[in-house]
Amino acid sequence: MARTIGSDGGRTEAAIREAAISLMARFGYEAVSMRQLAAEVGVQAAALYRYFPTKEDLLFTLLCEHMDGLLSAWEAARPANADPRERLTAFVRNHIHFHVARRHATHVSNMELRALSRDNLTQILRLRTAYEKELRQILRDGAEAGTFVIDDTGLTAIAIIQMLTGVIVWFRPGERLSVEEVAETYLAMTMRLTGAENARENTHVRAHA
Amino acid sequence: MARTIGSDGGRTEAAIREAAISLMARFGYEAVSMRQLAAEVGVQAAALYRYFPTKEDLLFTLLCEHMDGLLSAWEAARPANADPRERLTAFVRNHIHFHVARRHATHVSNMELRALSRDNLTQILRLRTAYEKELRQILRDGAEAGTFVIDDTGLTAIAIIQMLTGVIVWFRPGERLSVEEVAETYLAMTMRLTGAENARENTHVRAHA
Repeated sequence: MARTIGSDGGRTEAAIREAAISLMARFGYEAVSMRQLAAEVGVQAAALYRYFPTKEDLLFTLLCEHMDGLLSAWEAARPANADPRERLTAFVRNHIHFHVARRHATHVSNMELRALSRDNLTQILRLRTAYEKELRQILRDGAEAGTFVIDDTGLTAIAIIQMLTGVIVWFRPGERLSVEEVAETYLAMTMRLTGAENARENTHVRAHA
Repeated sequence: MARTIGSDGGRTEAAIREAAISLMARFGYEAVSMRQLAAEVGVQAAALYRYFPTKEDLLFTLLCEHMDGLLSAWEAARPANADPRERLTAFVRNHIHFHVARRHATHVSNMELRALSRDNLTQILRLRTAYEKELRQILRDGAEAGTFVIDDTGLTAIAIIQMLTGVIVWFRPGERLSVEEVAETYLAMTMRLTGAENARENTHVRAHA
């Protein structure tokens, strides 16, 4: 553990990020010291500070990457010229798959906003708003088309995102349900929640297609 | 701050709990020391240990009280001999009102399960399961009566609870919406999510009754 991982700076930085996510998910940001993190990665604390001058820089980097990754994943998954129902289907599947694959990072991202300085917090909240806006637009388009029944677009978007993200609290790969099965069940619930008619039949057809 | 709060042990204990919830919600359990907590309350650390021999005893007490309080609140709110729709309505309203009034305690309860010893964790999970069972029973009764459409009772119960609890992340009293308005919007979403027919019309009538 006392050995430096190698001269490959990219690999060291990746190792620092991975260890930071794992330690912070377990003990919380405040309780994890840069010294402890350096020991975990197997580098000197001084080396750590070369990559991340402060612990908050490190946290901010982790939270930025998480949101950038989520926005990129959605950009790639978003169907072009699709109707609101198809777009919502793609959104639900992408959201669940992305977060299940990044359980610890999601945990840290949701918990440690409190530790950010005001400017850094503003930047992260801007990325979150951009993501939420994508869902709000789908819901608004669907309500206008008469596909969805929505009382409050903002509240519905938040409710759906929190319901879907909640999967990471209990889901573990290799147990009763596969991530695909979980995603289809949550998709059916989302379709009903948004008042999409015949949602049940449609999503079942899709699930078995 | 150096003065002991008084000889009233009950009051001191309540002050310790309140300060612990507030500090742990802000910094996380691991980062809060018994010394820091004693300073916040204005007692000697030795006095603190008289009430709570270890920091984990304190955390466990907080988490037990939170879940006992939730179960008692539901016990008092649960309508007798009511149909599944009325019971679900009462469940949603009680859940949102309870958690909005205990935002920091909810935050600590959801985050710090990781800090409990195995025996204490088992006890808290048992209380959580008892609460979830109440909702599962409502969903099962509603599905059997043909009122609700449920694919997976367990997943639906978890999804509803996480969606409702998520309110504490963004809701602040005195802003755009009252807690009653938020509860009614979430009730309408829950009714649609569970496939209750004509849920929209019914909940709107109730909201304005």
